[in-house]
Amino acid sequence: MADRPDAAVPSELPAPVPLERVVVALGGELRGNMGLAVRRLAALADADETSVAFVAHPRYRARLQSSRAGAVIVAPELADVALQRPDPPPGGWAAWIVADPYAQFAALTRWWRAHVQPRPAPVGVHPTAWVAPGARVHPTARLGPFAVVEDGAVVEEDAELGAHAVVQARAHVGAGTRLGPHVVLGYDCRIGARGLVHGGTVIGADGFGFAPVPLPGGEGRRWEKIEQLGAVRIGDDVEIGANCCIDRGALGDTVLEDGVKLDNLIQIGHNVHVGRHTAMAGCVGVAGSARIGAFCTLGGGAIVLGHLELADHVHISAASVVMRSILQPGQYSGIFPIDDNRAWEKNAATLRQLHALRERLKALERRTTP
Amino acid sequence: MADRPDAAVPSELPAPVPLERVVVALGGELRGNMGLAVRRLAALADADETSVAFVAHPRYRARLQSSRAGAVIVAPELADVALQRPDPPPGGWAAWIVADPYAQFAALTRWWRAHVQPRPAPVGVHPTAWVAPGARVHPTARLGPFAVVEDGAVVEEDAELGAHAVVQARAHVGAGTRLGPHVVLGYDCRIGARGLVHGGTVIGADGFGFAPVPLPGGEGRRWEKIEQLGAVRIGDDVEIGANCCIDRGALGDTVLEDGVKLDNLIQIGHNVHVGRHTAMAGCVGVAGSARIGAFCTLGGGAIVLGHLELADHVHISAASVVMRSILQPGQYSGIFPIDDNRAWEKNAATLRQLHALRERLKALERRTTP
Amino acid sequence: MADRPDAAVPSELPAPVPLERVVVALGGELRGNMGLAVRRLAALADADETSVAFVAHPRYRARLQSSRAGAVIVAPELADVALQRPDPPPGGWAAWIVADPYAQFAALTRWWRAHVQPRPAPVGVHPTAWVAPGARVHPTARLGPFAVVEDGAVVEEDAELGAHAVVQARAHVGAGTRLGPHVVLGYDCRIGARGLVHGGTVIGADGFGFAPVPLPGGEGRRWEKIEQLGAVRIGDDVEIGANCCIDRGALGDTVLEDGVKLDNLIQIGHNVHVGRHTAMAGCVGVAGSARIGAFCTLGGGAIVLGHLELADHVHISAASVVMRSILQPGQYSGIFPIDDNRAWEKNAATLRQLHALRERLKALERRTTP
Repeated sequence: MADRPDAAVPSELPAPVPLERVVVALGGELRGNMGLAVRRLAALADADETSVAFVAHPRYRARLQSSRAGAVIVAPELADVALQRPDPPPGGWAAWIVADPYAQFAALTRWWRAHVQPRPAPVGVHPTAWVAPGARVHPTARLGPFAVVEDGAVVEEDAELGAHAVVQARAHVGAGTRLGPHVVLGYDCRIGARGLVHGGTVIGADGFGFAPVPLPGGEGRRWEKIEQLGAVRIGDDVEIGANCCIDRGALGDTVLEDGVKLDNLIQIGHNVHVGRHTAMAGCVGVAGSARIGAFCTLGGGAIVLGHLELADHVHISAASVVMRSILQPGQYSGIFPIDDNRAWEKNAATLRQLHALRERLKALERRTTP
Repeated sequence: MADRPDAAVPSELPAPVPLERVVVALGGELRGNMGLAVRRLAALADADETSVAFVAHPRYRARLQSSRAGAVIVAPELADVALQRPDPPPGGWAAWIVADPYAQFAALTRWWRAHVQPRPAPVGVHPTAWVAPGARVHPTARLGPFAVVEDGAVVEEDAELGAHAVVQARAHVGAGTRLGPHVVLGYDCRIGARGLVHGGTVIGADGFGFAPVPLPGGEGRRWEKIEQLGAVRIGDDVEIGANCCIDRGALGDTVLEDGVKLDNLIQIGHNVHVGRHTAMAGCVGVAGSARIGAFCTLGGGAIVLGHLELADHVHISAASVVMRSILQPGQYSGIFPIDDNRAWEKNAATLRQLHALRERLKALERRTTP
Repeated sequence: MADRPDAAVPSELPAPVPLERVVVALGGELRGNMGLAVRRLAALADADETSVAFVAHPRYRARLQSSRAGAVIVAPELADVALQRPDPPPGGWAAWIVADPYAQFAALTRWWRAHVQPRPAPVGVHPTAWVAPGARVHPTARLGPFAVVEDGAVVEEDAELGAHAVVQARAHVGAGTRLGPHVVLGYDCRIGARGLVHGGTVIGADGFGFAPVPLPGGEGRRWEKIEQLGAVRIGDDVEIGANCCIDRGALGDTVLEDGVKLDNLIQIGHNVHVGRHTAMAGCVGVAGSARIGAFCTLGGGAIVLGHLELADHVHISAASVVMRSILQPGQYSGIFPIDDNRAWEKNAATLRQLHALRERLKALERRTTP
């Protein structure tokens, strides 16, 4: 496996970009080497003299000092550190001074994507795509190979469907929204404007709803299907990762509000409501009818049980299980601490007697209290 | 994002349905407003006077009393409460009296889906579908755009393949079974009658089987593939959610018996055997060769290790890890309780010394025992 | 659901294979019934007189003794046990004696797949596949129905793309590598030689990267996208299960080294680096920028938090959460032990007071120390 420098560099290096042009476009103050031309964005440690890096926090001062990045996006208090790094190249170091370097770096990645390293995208409607006669696809929309738009569906201006994406009957894709390859947007489901759904995600499969019906003889019960008659409604500026599942509602809809961000392999059960700007990391599962507030974060692998409520600004640590409603903002955790296996075995075995230990402690306390 | 009442209502409201017609079709006794026509099914709290709701349990009596649902499916003991709610509409309230309101509501959703709010479905074989010359597709089967049926496969009467579904060589789809968009039914795999598999699920990928082989020099081992020579056999009336994985067996088959229900993003390893009418919530993982009984339930995110056995009627709580066979029916749990982060940190840190604490407690007990 | 013997048997039984021919091909010594012809591979307990089974470990001696397998692959010390089993068939029992029976059995499964029970595979390029004019597909490559190869992509000698697989622009599929149905290999991503990726896996979706930007009014923040400018680089001899997600890097690449094996439904975040011959079981999640060594194993459902490091030869138990770097080889665990629900409730409730119990114990110790 050939190695490649650990930085954002397309197969063929782009022509160098005058940094001053970028700073003019995005704002901030450029100091030091005003004539620098850059070829890539990189982390501090991996950057070379044709790279732009950034420092998100003053605690990275040491890393900044040893970085070979030609230019660094910094807050004002680190400008001098950035400019006075040892062993400068011929034109000297550059500092790009802004109030919020991390947000500026994010803006720079978007500028870079737009102007230097464009994403390959379908052009127009691919000849193999299939659009039902009763569908409405805006003339500026782009459809990849074998994309499908079913009857009564609407694909708005500048929207994009990846290869094999399926927009089922009467579904709605908002302006500028992009569905990746193999995404399914189920019938009657809607996603707003400027959204992004990554490959393989299924929006609008049936929620998991069954009524138990006793079997004759009393040995158990079978499950009778509850048809899922609702849909999924997704707001604007929502991003959903790859291979997620967002189920349609049983009665009423499953809702993701504006600005929600979901990572990969996330399960959102029927009739869940996720408030705006809430973000969830990979492998999270949210059971049916849970109601999650705005501005929340759920760490990777967290589980939220059904019918619970999370207030706004609640933060759940990775792999924690929410078993009760949480009505106060804050950070919540429930993770068994990892340990070497022998120590874990002893502690886990003792944990199974914990309540008994407490009773013994109580008894001792009674006995020894004068 | 426009708001829409939280109830099952298609984009265009259906014509009102005389409730008496539904009651005649599904059974039970209608009392109160016999002339009521309904337009939707709804939860008690969201219902209006053109809605049918239901009360699954007497503990919801207060919610029933304040509901504006035109008709409510109730057990006999709640009929009067349903009929005598305050502030009735002109024709009065209606009560639909049955022995098991939840099962009746499930039946109503199926009736509603069939008669009022039909699911959009492919008609016949889509012209873009590809059927191998040696495949056998029943004339009544429906194939969506770009569906694939490979050589030697069989698709029975009234079965349906969604867009891009793939039925590989010699696989078998039973009568009336529906595979959602992008579902893969692997070669030699079988699913019985009246099944439903949601989008993106992969049935019959290789199980995870490798033999370790030492590398020269003793630094470690590489993995040599064990070809997975079995298949997957799925019974009748099985529903599988979206983006699940049901692996083919190594030797012999992976089996899901009749009536099994799986939610989304579930992993079933090779040679697992799941007994009839067992249900699993989202994100469950069952490792290879586990044998799970009939009438079990596994909560969301539960993990079952390989080669274990679960008896019939075993219920595993969400996010619990089954590390040993469970041979007695009952409910089993293993979840670290969530807490605010500061409290969790203290308790988790102490947990790592739990065994030592127990030893200290023992020592104290010895010392203080007269 | 009809039953079928629990053994690897294709729909139509293959013609019997002279075992001696197989032993000559794969090595080892055949003793006992030299004229045996076999029809299937099976586990000891399920085998019949036309089956080959294996014994991986001397602790299975009792199972060996009662097995009806016509031939058993054994280590030298078990050869006599295999040959002298009671109630032999007319030609007697056979023993296939090798140094490492498990590795030999793995080799046998591969021989069986190649010579007796071939996997159905596309022949050439299916007429419905779509290959962009600027793509390069080797004449020996096989493409299934509706497969897509985009501009600038390369598919090497003897590679195979399943139905609906998508190789995006400038991606690279190494020689002999197979992508299952619906797999996506994202633009600029590379997989080496002899790889295998199962159905529905998405390689090269965007990593989960956003910068928080305060909303006016101070009520919270929204997320601004950080474009993911890196790609995914996968070495040789890598197998990836179904419905996994391997995200592209933010800056620089996500890397899976040679010989890595991933099971199903695994999430690999952006810029993760997985060392060679490391294996992960189903439902594992590895957060962004984690660096996992060589020769590691991660049990099913394990979670590794971001930016952590695991040394070589680290083994993580199923469902354990890695919250700190682990720099020493060994086995590590963190699982709440499952228990019957009543016992769990008591212990879990007490766990929330564990730190306080420790303080009470300390106080007692102080009080009772003479």
